[in-house]
Amino acid sequence: MATALIILAAGKGTRMKSDLPKVLHKVAGVPMLHHAMRGGAALSPERTIVVAGHGADQVEKAAKDYDADALIALQEEQNGTGHAVSMAKPALDDFSGDAIVLYGDTPFISPETLERMAEARKTHDVVVLGFEAADPARYGRLVMSGDRLDQIVEFKDASDEERAITFCNSGVICADAATLFDLIEQVSNDNASGEYYLTDIVGIANAKGLSATAIACDEAETLGINSRTDLAAAEAAFQARTRAEAMENGVTLPAPETVHFAFDTAIGRDTIIEQNVVFGPGVTVETGAHIRAFSHLEGCHVSRGAVVGPYARLRPGAELAEDTRIGNFVEVKNATIDEGAKVNHLSYIGDAHIGQRSNIGAGTITCNYDGVSKHHTEIGENVFIGSNTMLVAPVTVGNGALTGSGSVITKDVPADALAIARATQVNKPGMARKLFDLLRKKKAQKTKTEAG
Amino acid sequence: MATALIILAAGKGTRMKSDLPKVLHKVAGVPMLHHAMRGGAALSPERTIVVAGHGADQVEKAAKDYDADALIALQEEQNGTGHAVSMAKPALDDFSGDAIVLYGDTPFISPETLERMAEARKTHDVVVLGFEAADPARYGRLVMSGDRLDQIVEFKDASDEERAITFCNSGVICADAATLFDLIEQVSNDNASGEYYLTDIVGIANAKGLSATAIACDEAETLGINSRTDLAAAEAAFQARTRAEAMENGVTLPAPETVHFAFDTAIGRDTIIEQNVVFGPGVTVETGAHIRAFSHLEGCHVSRGAVVGPYARLRPGAELAEDTRIGNFVEVKNATIDEGAKVNHLSYIGDAHIGQRSNIGAGTITCNYDGVSKHHTEIGENVFIGSNTMLVAPVTVGNGALTGSGSVITKDVPADALAIARATQVNKPGMARKLFDLLRKKKAQKTKTEAG
Amino acid sequence: MATALIILAAGKGTRMKSDLPKVLHKVAGVPMLHHAMRGGAALSPERTIVVAGHGADQVEKAAKDYDADALIALQEEQNGTGHAVSMAKPALDDFSGDAIVLYGDTPFISPETLERMAEARKTHDVVVLGFEAADPARYGRLVMSGDRLDQIVEFKDASDEERAITFCNSGVICADAATLFDLIEQVSNDNASGEYYLTDIVGIANAKGLSATAIACDEAETLGINSRTDLAAAEAAFQARTRAEAMENGVTLPAPETVHFAFDTAIGRDTIIEQNVVFGPGVTVETGAHIRAFSHLEGCHVSRGAVVGPYARLRPGAELAEDTRIGNFVEVKNATIDEGAKVNHLSYIGDAHIGQRSNIGAGTITCNYDGVSKHHTEIGENVFIGSNTMLVAPVTVGNGALTGSGSVITKDVPADALAIARATQVNKPGMARKLFDLLRKKKAQKTKTEAG
Repeated sequence: MATALIILAAGKGTRMKSDLPKVLHKVAGVPMLHHAMRGGAALSPERTIVVAGHGADQVEKAAKDYDADALIALQEEQNGTGHAVSMAKPALDDFSGDAIVLYGDTPFISPETLERMAEARKTHDVVVLGFEAADPARYGRLVMSGDRLDQIVEFKDASDEERAITFCNSGVICADAATLFDLIEQVSNDNASGEYYLTDIVGIANAKGLSATAIACDEAETLGINSRTDLAAAEAAFQARTRAEAMENGVTLPAPETVHFAFDTAIGRDTIIEQNVVFGPGVTVETGAHIRAFSHLEGCHVSRGAVVGPYARLRPGAELAEDTRIGNFVEVKNATIDEGAKVNHLSYIGDAHIGQRSNIGAGTITCNYDGVSKHHTEIGENVFIGSNTMLVAPVTVGNGALTGSGSVITKDVPADALAIARATQVNKPGMARKLFDLLRKKKAQKTKTEAG
Repeated sequence: MATALIILAAGKGTRMKSDLPKVLHKVAGVPMLHHAMRGGAALSPERTIVVAGHGADQVEKAAKDYDADALIALQEEQNGTGHAVSMAKPALDDFSGDAIVLYGDTPFISPETLERMAEARKTHDVVVLGFEAADPARYGRLVMSGDRLDQIVEFKDASDEERAITFCNSGVICADAATLFDLIEQVSNDNASGEYYLTDIVGIANAKGLSATAIACDEAETLGINSRTDLAAAEAAFQARTRAEAMENGVTLPAPETVHFAFDTAIGRDTIIEQNVVFGPGVTVETGAHIRAFSHLEGCHVSRGAVVGPYARLRPGAELAEDTRIGNFVEVKNATIDEGAKVNHLSYIGDAHIGQRSNIGAGTITCNYDGVSKHHTEIGENVFIGSNTMLVAPVTVGNGALTGSGSVITKDVPADALAIARATQVNKPGMARKLFDLLRKKKAQKTKTEAG
Repeated sequence: MATALIILAAGKGTRMKSDLPKVLHKVAGVPMLHHAMRGGAALSPERTIVVAGHGADQVEKAAKDYDADALIALQEEQNGTGHAVSMAKPALDDFSGDAIVLYGDTPFISPETLERMAEARKTHDVVVLGFEAADPARYGRLVMSGDRLDQIVEFKDASDEERAITFCNSGVICADAATLFDLIEQVSNDNASGEYYLTDIVGIANAKGLSATAIACDEAETLGINSRTDLAAAEAAFQARTRAEAMENGVTLPAPETVHFAFDTAIGRDTIIEQNVVFGPGVTVETGAHIRAFSHLEGCHVSRGAVVGPYARLRPGAELAEDTRIGNFVEVKNATIDEGAKVNHLSYIGDAHIGQRSNIGAGTITCNYDGVSKHHTEIGENVFIGSNTMLVAPVTVGNGALTGSGSVITKDVPADALAIARATQVNKPGMARKLFDLLRKKKAQKTKTEAG
């Protein structure tokens, strides 16, 4: 069965107090809209329509960042969820198959849940996603008769008996696309808010002799985000789940509550992630690697046996081979570090390749930017870069070469050569004492002058 | 109505196990005494008397740090709260108006609460601050008849009926100053502890035909600190409240529990504060700034659109203009960074001014200290400071100038000039190989000698 | 009474999903096996037998790391706790005295508890360690008659009445060694698992007219580790307890939940440990020191009045004297810093000695490694090391000397001398402008070429 996703993403999110459209606020390192799109991807949708309103340009850009083929339907006025879904109709006029309505501010609906909804669609015309609410509060209630969903009752319209129901509406709904739009056309806005509610289609469907059902997912999946506090709670829920999974899979986290993962962090078995480590998107850490405290990783790959940190920052394009070592106060960006190579202290390695077993001394900097363009630094195998060497890119240092500490390397260094750029040391006897005497005298005079 | 604050700050705080007077331990970046003084400032007091005892000199200094006009009354022996308050009498002999008794170890009484007490004073002679205790435990109980406070009963003297009362005494009390001291004079120390209890004045006042009342504040405001555990709990309470307020005001905190604010941190709307950020006192962050993980800010100002960190340290006097960028392992102190300027990696910028759009290379250091005095570094607009440039202050680099990487700049650089201080690179063919062979041979000999 | 420890450490720990034997996973900075050995040390054991199986070589190494005299008994097949203990018999054939059975995966049994067990042994033949379980779940139940232990009943064999018992079995057991092995010989494996259960010896002992008893410890002591989640929980329990103790002892922790101690961290009174500090093993911090945020300490000593961090890393062998100062982005390893000396910014100090009151400029690096061996740097008193000085070890800088910033110091510097190794600065007027024009033109051409 062909499937189309309709993702509602038009709301302003007033309680966010933000100029950024609500669905673009990030959870686990990516906009929450992407979470909804990723969840929906489980259904291999033929078409994805994002209904945008506030900040539609930004929302469109983000949607296409995730899926270049995503279509945008503009909802200029926000007249309720039914109205929002109907905006997607023109984009689906030539589409035949199921449509499922998801929400850009509800990031955690799982692929498995959506697959179960698709399964339920085989036997029912309309499938609603519900959840057993620990505290049903003001959620809409799902009124069931056996496996048939009779009606979705809004809390404010519910009788005492209906309010006693704890099976609640998530808002996610699935039906044949043509049926869905037909049903929506019959929804009225004759209610206190003057809005068209998507939920009303269940009653209408039943009245028309169609069959509706509801399946249940975990309440945690239905968490919706309306404020920065909700955003932090969603992040916390994601982190708690991800930390637990990592430990379950054989990752040691001495202080799990201090490790922050992104949505796609992949950590191998028998790795250790110490305290206070932050992962941005795009990180893979292989089995047996060790990420030490206070490290920050993003868009990088850490191979087996590598040790990173403490206080290491791996930026996008950092590629660490096996048994490499990136130490404290070291930044690596867009650079490949080959097997057994070491960058232990206070260095910046950007736009570079470092060969096997090379040792990069403390304070080394690849001067990759000339103020206009970025350039590459190539370091061979078994090279020893002396402390505080400046490698002015583009530059190549051959295998087995050595640079003298404090050298500015502007020309290529042949293999096995020693490159040095250094002034000769001169010791001026007694000069330090004289200089400090002078400086102290000057200071005393200055103080006197200022006081006088 | 003129108001005087009497702040009790004489206690030793034995359970703190500290040489520092209890009220000088810090909460949210400042001594808890300052919190009491700040709270009291809501009443625009004409006079503030701090009653000091243990470590009186240090307490006096801290009090005057906050308010140079604060007066110190010495309580040489600690004979109870009534006795403590009476020490303030000489400082108020010529004063006419209200006195309110606050506590140096109770940092969270809010300005609003104190204003409500002042309001209640219009209709009653004595106003006591109470709270509904979740667990009344051994607190003194406030015995009310309607809005009249009949008596404060110490827990140990309370009847079963009185112990059932959950409205408890915070110790904060307000009355006309002359009345207060009159009442205290009638307090006796005829009790198990042999101390003069301030609380006794309520019964005495009623007996004299004066009227007493109590108003209620949130229990959290009355949190008193007697141990380091209490201190941590107070800090945690402050942080939880402040994080919630920040999110409520439109600040994104992906991991709020890892962000530590100071008492006066001001964060604009639509800013992002990532994981593990610490704010010392005196920080303002404007709308739309981004503070990345592992950053430490103190006494600084971050303008709109600036990006700070990860691993950036902004020290007092760091002033970042719009769209500036301070990157990893960078320390900025007493320095103004103009619009669009960047200091991205491994640098120390102290006592400096950097002009618009200038780019400071990795490893740059302003050598601001000559061992005796500190000096200023002036960098113009559109300057490109090459990596690892030492700027030996005082020194000026003109607009549009460039310094070669690895240069020690001791003389001013004119606008548009290239300044370079660098030895010529020499490549000595085969020399690295020879050198390592030699070093390995020496090591082998040494090992042999030591073993032999 | 002579005592022998029998520590069971043979299990695979399948749920750990690890190639590392379970008992070698670390809690509080050391393998959990060491915790069991440290606990047992309270009994001054004459002999320690570690029963190893999975990864026996690694377990043996770790055991001998802790106690070179520890003996290893190999349990090739895992046939139950009774079988495991019997493996220790050959190692105790010539031993006369008590044997106590501990577990390598149960790190928190306290010395005090073991001493109470030894005390109970004076009046009973077999002593079992029990605990009052908050949730007895599937633990074995201790069936007592007064102070006599009648039997240990496995949960699955327990009657409803027995299941109502909340006094549960920790597994720790103590008896005369010869008696213990005699009793174990009579244990049968006639049960569902086909294993020999150590717990069965209680019933056998009673049947033989011996007396058994059980003493109780806190349930927290009996926490056993079977998964990475358990490991994290054990770490969390250790940290919570240690943080509370530190505060109780007069240490200020503004955010205790962010400070991570090792098993042996020793912190003096009136120290402040700020947010996000990690202690590895072997750290002593004296009274009145101040460890600032984001610091990482391991194997080091910080004296009275020293200030460390933020972002300081002290590695093994860092020895800070009184009133020293180690600042941000500074790494210190195997180095002694004398009284009043300062290393404030962006430096690496390794294999060095810095004399009193010396000031080490920003960006200083001790170049201690020549690619083959490590060498020492000796800095005298009152020395001023200019920013970005490279100290190429072995090298000595005399008292009162000064190095020019950006110098590479390869030769010793006499006392009071100024050492400088620096090229002269040349300003090339207009050259920056020309250079940038050129670079921009080249870039434009390149872009054009690539586009064309």
